[in-house]
Parts: sequence; structure tokens; C-alpha cells
Amino acid sequence: MSKVKVGINGYGTIGKRVADAVKAQNDMEVVGVTKTRPTFEAQTAIDKGFSLYVPEDSLKAFRDAKMPVKGTIKDLYKAAEIMVDCTPGDVGEKYKAEYEAAGIKAIFQGGEDHSLTGISFNSTANYSESWGAQFSRVVSCNTTGLLRTLNPIDKKIKIKNAYVTLVRRGVDPGDSKGGPINGLEPTVKLPTHHGPDVKSIMPWLNINTMAIKASTTLMHLHTVVVELEKETGTDEILNIMRTSPRVKLIKSSSGIKGTAEIMELGREMGRNRSDMYEIVVWEDGVKVVGKMLYYYQAVHQESDVVPENIDCIRSMCKMEEDASVSISKTNKSLGIRQ
Amino acid sequence: MSKVKVGINGYGTIGKRVADAVKAQNDMEVVGVTKTRPTFEAQTAIDKGFSLYVPEDSLKAFRDAKMPVKGTIKDLYKAAEIMVDCTPGDVGEKYKAEYEAAGIKAIFQGGEDHSLTGISFNSTANYSESWGAQFSRVVSCNTTGLLRTLNPIDKKIKIKNAYVTLVRRGVDPGDSKGGPINGLEPTVKLPTHHGPDVKSIMPWLNINTMAIKASTTLMHLHTVVVELEKETGTDEILNIMRTSPRVKLIKSSSGIKGTAEIMELGREMGRNRSDMYEIVVWEDGVKVVGKMLYYYQAVHQESDVVPENIDCIRSMCKMEEDASVSISKTNKSLGIRQ
Repeated sequence: MSKVKVGINGYGTIGKRVADAVKAQNDMEVVGVTKTRPTFEAQTAIDKGFSLYVPEDSLKAFRDAKMPVKGTIKDLYKAAEIMVDCTPGDVGEKYKAEYEAAGIKAIFQGGEDHSLTGISFNSTANYSESWGAQFSRVVSCNTTGLLRTLNPIDKKIKIKNAYVTLVRRGVDPGDSKGGPINGLEPTVKLPTHHGPDVKSIMPWLNINTMAIKASTTLMHLHTVVVELEKETGTDEILNIMRTSPRVKLIKSSSGIKGTAEIMELGREMGRNRSDMYEIVVWEDGVKVVGKMLYYYQAVHQESDVVPENIDCIRSMCKMEEDASVSISKTNKSLGIRQ
Repeated sequence: MSKVKVGINGYGTIGKRVADAVKAQNDMEVVGVTKTRPTFEAQTAIDKGFSLYVPEDSLKAFRDAKMPVKGTIKDLYKAAEIMVDCTPGDVGEKYKAEYEAAGIKAIFQGGEDHSLTGISFNSTANYSESWGAQFSRVVSCNTTGLLRTLNPIDKKIKIKNAYVTLVRRGVDPGDSKGGPINGLEPTVKLPTHHGPDVKSIMPWLNINTMAIKASTTLMHLHTVVVELEKETGTDEILNIMRTSPRVKLIKSSSGIKGTAEIMELGREMGRNRSDMYEIVVWEDGVKVVGKMLYYYQAVHQESDVVPENIDCIRSMCKMEEDASVSISKTNKSLGIRQ
């Protein structure tokens, strides 16, 4: 079987992770990654053996930095069948036109609006909707987190209403600019974009989201309040979560008090970059009272969408029709247990 | 009019503030404050002219530190008509017996259980319930914050359900131990104590609370989701909040992005210790959709209960029958605008 040729546009937080994840598959390969400036991340891409493609007006800077470049970004379009666009949010419009002109497929990330592609992707919720599509969009880390738990619950026990508070990390661990250093910042414009973004995949879901930015770099943490259509029990919910892909149940009694310990667990598990691809739910924090369900979940903003990007490639490139087969394959390659 | 004689047991975060607030009233006076160790706070109490009372076995330590002591804690019981107990949580049982034996009144703080006193206090919600009582309890900072906004809304438009997420400060600004320094910690045991604590004053209210501890020292920040009995509009809610005591509406467009700016405002207002006694609500973060109401509120954990302690003294010592008169008086003395 010939491998699907994947290009990564933007070798940043998500791009570098998707590159490694693509490399870990036996049915696809990385034909190149792009970088605009000769940073330490560009050097690590070279060190890992990825071919570097840069914008034409960056060629000199890379030459000056003595970093070998394979070609320009437009050259990469010729080598790739599908681009995973991991450029910063809101520049997708420009690139979409380029991909279109080159006649190749492309996946965008959650920083772009749903309207850019008209199709959004989550492995659990709607794998087949991107089947054969030229363009799709993997929803953001928080939206992915919400879909991973809410979608299976909605499938088994219909959800009437969901009220979510997202406590967001201020900046990523690799950033040293921005973010509250000691304070909490509400996103006053309501609803925040997260609820509508979940609806881009589950349009029937009544969901409202509020968000607070906190002084932390590690993970987002959600409180989820769900009004179910019928009464249920905590065990039923835990059983649903236990069988949901990329949802990890942990217990506070095991010493996992918060996001710091979850990230420490990722390091102990020997994960690439110590990532935690799974949405982490506190088993002893799941509570059902009649039709009301309450739980906490933690989202590793840097990595939870990485396996979804791999599955999205398989759906768009018609490599595997069965979502669960693609999910299993991706999981196995990244060390995610079912 | 003779002034009511108030003793403060525990000159810590709350005690030192209540002492200053009592001193600022014309109908009560501080007859003494207690401290167990000769710390810098004990020195500032002396510098401010407060008489210091200490446990018998601390007398030597204070003598060694050359800090003048007026007597033992038991001596203070003789000088005071009412004690404001600001000792650490869960030691109230022991002190209650002492106050009882001394035949004096006492106010406890939110660190104690409602069952200790059988009466809990909030100026807005139930001023008159502590009328003439020997013992009462001013509920915690978070509970006070919830009562200040939920009670007036419930009075005007009945509340069917309230779902609150409290993002709590890790430690107080004056502490350098404990608290997540980079992380978020959920309180997994649900419901958290905050909901039941609100019910100690509004037993008919359906309220559920979840809580997350964050890496910040400044304030708590709540997301409040309220299901009302009938449809309403954002302006109606804002009008209720505008006329509710000790609720301050601010706008993010004025530059108040988060808790850091609120605390900066407290400093600019020239408040004692830069405190923000009011519950701060983002006006542009209040949203009504049909019967659902969403808002954010910030709680200054060190100071919001201070005016309630003053009002509670007035109710328990039968100094002022009309809640609104006491509230106005306290507000005026502390620089809180209506």
C-alpha cells in the first residue's frame, strides 16, 4: 500500500505534534513541514529528518542561519496530497485559496471558523462526515474535549441542556508572553465561541459555555453540568465514559489532585513530549442527581487534537471507512490505551 | 449613646479588617484583639492602638518580644459585650463554650458549620434573623458573594435552579505556602460545601456548586447560571443588581479585564488595605436567554464579609432594627457607594 503524502503547514505547537504522529503511522508519511523563521523549532524539525519548506521571502534568513531548506511552501504543495494547516488562527482563508489552486486537500484547525470549510471533524462524533472531503476542520482542543464526553452521553442518554465553564490556561508552557500571571479573566462576551463550536458538529445540542482565563500553562479544566432527558446513575455514566475513545478516568485518591499531576502522569507514561492526548475525567468527581449530571474534565490543549488530525486524514483520503478502526490504529501508534 | 464593646478573637486576615471596620463606626468600639504569637501583625495591632489579649501560655513569648499585653483572652471576655470570632476554621466549638461560660455574645465566621450556631447571617438576605441572638455566623466569602446577587434576583424573579462554578484563589496574597503554583485543582467531592452553605440562609433555593482552585491570590471568580421561573431581560437583571447592596457593576470596556484590574481599582479608590468589599459583576458579561441568566462575579475573599460582620453586630446587639439603615451606615463608614 502506498503511503498518503502529508505536508504540515506551520511547525508550531500543533504542527510539530501532528508531524510526529503522522510519522508514527504505517499508512501515511510526512513529505515536508513549513516554518517561516529559522528558530530552534525549525532546527529540531531538521534534526528529526523532516524536509523544511519555507516562504520565498524567508529563504535568505534560513540560508544565513545555515539551515538546509528543501524548497518553498509552493513546492511542498506539489509533493503533498493533503496539507495539515497548523498556521496561526484566521490566516486560513489565504491558504485555502492556495491549496485550492494546487488541487490538494487540507485540514484546518480550530482557530479557523467552521464556515471556512463547512465541515468540522471529531473522531468520536462524526468521522464519516469528512469522508473524501477536500477541506475539513479539526475543532479546537476545548471543543474536542467536550465532544469526546458529551457525544457518547448524548448517544446513550439524550442531553437536554449542557452548561459548561471552561477554566482556560493563560498561555502554553512554551510561551512567556501574555496571560494573567496572577489573576482570573472572564470572557464576558456570552456565549463564548466554544458552545457554538460544539454545535458545528452536534447542531441539535443545547449547550451554553462560559470561560475564565487562569494563571496556568498546563491544561484547561472544565466543569460540565448536564441536564439529561431521563434519570440515570453515576455507574451508567462512568460506563459510558469508560468505553468512550480517548477519555481517561482517574481518581483523586490516587494522588491526582489537579492538572499538575496529570501532566506528571504524561511524563511517567513516557509519552512523546509528555503529552496527554486523552480527556481526563475525575471518576470521583462524577455525580448524578436525578436527571442532573456533574463532572470535571481536563484538556491538554497542546495535544488532544493530534489523534483527531490523523483520523481526519484517513477519512478525507478514504483510507479507512470504519471510524473505530482508524481510532484504534491511531491510538495504538500513540500509546493511547482503550 | 454608649458604644457596644466588641472584642476580636484572632487578628488575622478577617480579624484585622473587622477591627478596623468596628473602629470606623460611631456606635461600637474595639475593646481588644487577640493574637497567639508576637508576629508583625501583632505589632501592627499595637501600633494602631488596639489592646492586645493573648492566651495564658503565650504571655512569655510576648514579654520576650517586648510587646505590651493588656491581659489574657479570658480577661477580654470581661471587657467585651460581643466577640467576633475570627480564629481559624473548626476551633469554634471550643471557643463557643468559653463565650457561653462568660455570658457574652459571639459571631463566628464561615469556616465554622452552620450547626454551631443554628443561625447564619447575610446583610442582604436575612439581617433580622440574628436579632438579639447570642450566637450567629457570618457565612464565608463565596457564600456571601452568592447571596448578595442571588437573593435579590430570587426576591424579584423567582429562581428555579442555580448552577455555579467557583474558581477559587489558591492562597491569600499574604500567604506563601500551599496553593497550586501552576495548575488547576477541582474539588471532586460534589456538591462542594458552597451550595449547602447558601441554603443555610436560603433553604428553598435549588443550587449546585462546583469548584476549581487556581494559581492566583487575588480574588475568587464565579460563573453563575440561573434558571428563572419566568422569562426576563438583561436590563431587568442589571436594574436588580444596581440596587442590590454591595454589588458593584463594572464594564470590561473600561479596562477591567479580570481580577487584577479590580484589585487595582481598590487601590485607586484609596480603600483601607486596598480592599474591595463589593461583589463585582461584569455588566457586559450579564446575559439573559429566555429563562436562563448567565453572569460572572468576582469575590474579594479577604474583605467582602467585613461589612456583614458590622451589620451582624448591630442585629445581634439590637442596635438597629432596619437592615437597610445598618447597611447604609456601614457602607458610608467603609466608603462603599450605593
